[in-house]
Amino acid sequence: MVKMKKLRIAVIGAGFWGKNHIRVLSELQQAELVAVCDVNEQRATAIAEKYGIKPYTSSRELYKKESFDAVSICVWSTELFKESMEALNAGKHVFVEKPMASRVEEAEKMLETAESAGLHLTVGFIERFNPAVVRLKKAIDEGEIGQPVSATGKRVSKWPERIGDVGVVKDTAIHDIDLMRYIFEEDPVSVYARAGSLRHRRFEDYAQVMLAFPSGKSAFLEANWLTPYKVRRLTVTGSEAIITIDYITQKITIETSNKTLIPRYEWKEPLKLELQHFVESVLNKNNLIVTGLDGVKALKIAEAILESAEKNRLIELSL
Amino acid sequence: MVKMKKLRIAVIGAGFWGKNHIRVLSELQQAELVAVCDVNEQRATAIAEKYGIKPYTSSRELYKKESFDAVSICVWSTELFKESMEALNAGKHVFVEKPMASRVEEAEKMLETAESAGLHLTVGFIERFNPAVVRLKKAIDEGEIGQPVSATGKRVSKWPERIGDVGVVKDTAIHDIDLMRYIFEEDPVSVYARAGSLRHRRFEDYAQVMLAFPSGKSAFLEANWLTPYKVRRLTVTGSEAIITIDYITQKITIETSNKTLIPRYEWKEPLKLELQHFVESVLNKNNLIVTGLDGVKALKIAEAILESAEKNRLIELSL
Amino acid sequence: MVKMKKLRIAVIGAGFWGKNHIRVLSELQQAELVAVCDVNEQRATAIAEKYGIKPYTSSRELYKKESFDAVSICVWSTELFKESMEALNAGKHVFVEKPMASRVEEAEKMLETAESAGLHLTVGFIERFNPAVVRLKKAIDEGEIGQPVSATGKRVSKWPERIGDVGVVKDTAIHDIDLMRYIFEEDPVSVYARAGSLRHRRFEDYAQVMLAFPSGKSAFLEANWLTPYKVRRLTVTGSEAIITIDYITQKITIETSNKTLIPRYEWKEPLKLELQHFVESVLNKNNLIVTGLDGVKALKIAEAILESAEKNRLIELSL
Amino acid sequence: MVKMKKLRIAVIGAGFWGKNHIRVLSELQQAELVAVCDVNEQRATAIAEKYGIKPYTSSRELYKKESFDAVSICVWSTELFKESMEALNAGKHVFVEKPMASRVEEAEKMLETAESAGLHLTVGFIERFNPAVVRLKKAIDEGEIGQPVSATGKRVSKWPERIGDVGVVKDTAIHDIDLMRYIFEEDPVSVYARAGSLRHRRFEDYAQVMLAFPSGKSAFLEANWLTPYKVRRLTVTGSEAIITIDYITQKITIETSNKTLIPRYEWKEPLKLELQHFVESVLNKNNLIVTGLDGVKALKIAEAILESAEKNRLIELSL
Repeated sequence: MVKMKKLRIAVIGAGFWGKNHIRVLSELQQAELVAVCDVNEQRATAIAEKYGIKPYTSSRELYKKESFDAVSICVWSTELFKESMEALNAGKHVFVEKPMASRVEEAEKMLETAESAGLHLTVGFIERFNPAVVRLKKAIDEGEIGQPVSATGKRVSKWPERIGDVGVVKDTAIHDIDLMRYIFEEDPVSVYARAGSLRHRRFEDYAQVMLAFPSGKSAFLEANWLTPYKVRRLTVTGSEAIITIDYITQKITIETSNKTLIPRYEWKEPLKLELQHFVESVLNKNNLIVTGLDGVKALKIAEAILESAEKNRLIELSL
Repeated sequence: MVKMKKLRIAVIGAGFWGKNHIRVLSELQQAELVAVCDVNEQRATAIAEKYGIKPYTSSRELYKKESFDAVSICVWSTELFKESMEALNAGKHVFVEKPMASRVEEAEKMLETAESAGLHLTVGFIERFNPAVVRLKKAIDEGEIGQPVSATGKRVSKWPERIGDVGVVKDTAIHDIDLMRYIFEEDPVSVYARAGSLRHRRFEDYAQVMLAFPSGKSAFLEANWLTPYKVRRLTVTGSEAIITIDYITQKITIETSNKTLIPRYEWKEPLKLELQHFVESVLNKNNLIVTGLDGVKALKIAEAILESAEKNRLIELSL
Repeated sequence: MVKMKKLRIAVIGAGFWGKNHIRVLSELQQAELVAVCDVNEQRATAIAEKYGIKPYTSSRELYKKESFDAVSICVWSTELFKESMEALNAGKHVFVEKPMASRVEEAEKMLETAESAGLHLTVGFIERFNPAVVRLKKAIDEGEIGQPVSATGKRVSKWPERIGDVGVVKDTAIHDIDLMRYIFEEDPVSVYARAGSLRHRRFEDYAQVMLAFPSGKSAFLEANWLTPYKVRRLTVTGSEAIITIDYITQKITIETSNKTLIPRYEWKEPLKLELQHFVESVLNKNNLIVTGLDGVKALKIAEAILESAEKNRLIELSL
Repeated sequence: MVKMKKLRIAVIGAGFWGKNHIRVLSELQQAELVAVCDVNEQRATAIAEKYGIKPYTSSRELYKKESFDAVSICVWSTELFKESMEALNAGKHVFVEKPMASRVEEAEKMLETAESAGLHLTVGFIERFNPAVVRLKKAIDEGEIGQPVSATGKRVSKWPERIGDVGVVKDTAIHDIDLMRYIFEEDPVSVYARAGSLRHRRFEDYAQVMLAFPSGKSAFLEANWLTPYKVRRLTVTGSEAIITIDYITQKITIETSNKTLIPRYEWKEPLKLELQHFVESVLNKNNLIVTGLDGVKALKIAEAILESAEKNRLIELSL
């Protein structure tokens, strides 16, 4: 009997989202969770005990003492770059949570480092793995909506207090930024945006964005941390039909001239599908669905959005 | 017994929409339909017979022979200016269908003429009279959605073959252009738009528009003559709730953090409410809900949209 | 040129519903509306004037003076028998509104009379002509829901004050009684019912009914004049899918294991389809979709329902 | 510091549903899971290992060797009586899954035994703890729908292969049977039912039931193991409004004359609420929401349903 190869992996950052990574990785057959690292010792110890893994409070220490293949990095946005570089320099394949880094320059450095070291580097654009998005992409690719004309992404909810080092564009709208490139299979050529802050002290808490694509398509993005009713929806309008998904319920609705169709599928946890893909891609040396370059481009667009909003002018993009 | 004063009115243009005007005016208690004018003699005669009114094929003739107070002008966009000027010069109060005129200069001339003659001039922005819009406006004014942040208007359907002299922006999106000013009670300060033609020979058949308002609010407008499933929806997102209306069913949905509320009202024909308001405003010398200035401003924004799309740049507005 | 044959028809009863008959008949190309008869002279005259037809206050007089082929009878339930007999005896084809008559014996007499005179006799089971019902029947016949197992009809609304001579079973539930026979293509063999009055003085204003069919299928009927929110829905559950229609919006929803499908159709006025069918059937000597026998059977079931509710026992039917 | 009192509990039966009991009990702060018992040794051992508890294959052995307060019994319907009696005779408080026992006589014996021994006995009517039912009951009690008139429960899905010792009435419809008594706060006085088998070899796989209540209210129940689309819905119609819940999504919809209201609540796991209530009631010697008598009555009604269907007659009940 051949023993299945498993990817040995550690998680850096055991906050709200890191805990989800740990839970999901512990359930994946092809992954072997080896350690967790968190600056908060109590948190690291508690979670390590629960999952029977080793706790660390310093990633440097982790790399020195443990032998493993990959890390998932779930720290604050401001720490993503430092932790990723350390992991890449330690020769680890890296799954880094969005927004990948605080600034484009950092993200580019990460990408370069990973490429020259021949390491896998992916970014946590989890929505690409959302079954509703997968089906929407498939429906569009199969011509079900005719020629795509425009897309509208809405992502609003009350301010998640745990996020204090980044605004709604880089934290939240970035999912839709990435998705628009993914769905239209084009890079936007210009961006116009409005953003501001109604409640947040340091960062923008709402943004409205229009992205223009070379083929003539446009995308509207709307994100805020104001509206207390959580909405996560995407609508793509085509020459023949309109397709709408709800990221939360994973419901997909296709409206054509003579019917409304709601295919029914089993709900699946996007994080599980996302981490499974990362684990398998590294193990099998396959291409990643989300590349480091996707992360760099999304960050470039996010920065253009913030610049456009600040200067109230159209920003041209050359990705 | 005091006899109720009635507004004597004629309709210019007996095409698809003009016929609706005639039907509705014939049902209004305060209006007395006196004549119809259409370049197509057969059409003029047929409709005149049905409603027991006088047919004309020339409006000049009409003004010479009949005595009345007001006209409703439902001709092609390219003829709206000429017919309106003729009516105003004949001393008639004017209800002119949108887009009011082909160009801003014409609309301004009409406004000037009406003002100096002390005549009522209104434009057919029928959606302001849609009960769903009335309730949405009231809900916003009463603070039900908190502070408005953004609005999205979607208006798509297959190309109405009867419209051949104007594109989707001036014909269709113009409703949303007007509504955004009405709902936000502000004039936009800049516009960025993308538009093009997938099927139409002469004019744009799709447009995506972003309007920026001085207070920081934004509006997305999406209009096309491509998607065969007819959608007419407006969503306003506020700091406390999201409100959505369907112009066709007049359904209104308010989503807050702890409930979805769908108030139920009787469906009412917007055209009837709109013409009734015009008739009463003229009879009672009251202010109009839609002024000639509203028409001029909407046309200015429409032209800025087309310019933005053509030059791919942000257009600043000074209304 | 051959002149199209038209059915000359008169309407007896110009109340709320009779007025609708008159309006619709006036629009049908194959019908020629000749007269209206109503005991209320003012009402008869007003409506006759509007449609350019002759007014009568006595149907006897009408039959004596006018020459025509058919009548539509829209009087109170208690008068349906008398008026129908008079019409049949005068040699007219008869469209009689539901519930056809006050009692089964009367209905049977009408049926007999029509049959021996070779006259068309139909009953106003308008829902059979509702496009949503037509589609539901077609979907079931084509096997889209597998084997039908059960059906549930709900028909509730506040008490229509104009109805004072009959209870909710014979007035309202009778539509569903007829539809269950029509959809299942079987006659029920037993009925169990509960009914009572919460607000109405003389008649039952709510009823819950269970009909058993020989094949094992069952139907639940629920009707009341209490609930102020008007609901008119039918659900048929099959071994493979569930199909639901809303009679008012004519929306049809098919739920299978892997999708919800909402076909989209143009809304059509059931009364127009119903009267058109009557007119054409008489003109072309075709079979009627709703026969006099259908009317008799529905009335028998309605009476069994009332008996079951009164005696609180199961009533066996032998139709 | 006072140490919190915990209820020591064991689970009998580690099949599909027993595993859920074990998982939930392991999460309850006031419960201490001590052992699991299953005739399948491998299954018992595997689950015991996962939760760090003791495995048994004989409940007799379990009662001899372990010291604890209560059991939750999740075995096949045919074994519920035997296992419950053994537990009660061993002096344990008992949570027994529905349908409580195979026959009324057994259930009555269990009730008697528990009462004379002063032990808590409850039945797994989990839907009473479904937050949607709790809210529906509250809404009705607070008069939001006026006077309740009727209720309709629909519970259909494809045949769950794991259930082979009982039909759809005692397994599935029994939830609605219990709920109707709970919601109307009355015992039904008669039952009429139709049931049969389209696919199942030994037991009925569909049933339609009408329950009559002394106050005049009625309930329709519909259950089957045929329709592949899983539906679990309850509608209560009142003199002022209609309230509908979906047991699965826990969505609640209230339709009144002037609005549709969908209150939004957090989804909660009914099994957790149910077991928590059992644990707390035993610990604090409080009354149970679902009593053994409720179980006996539900079983009596279920048997009356089967008798009615078999003999095709109305069965009078005297609960």
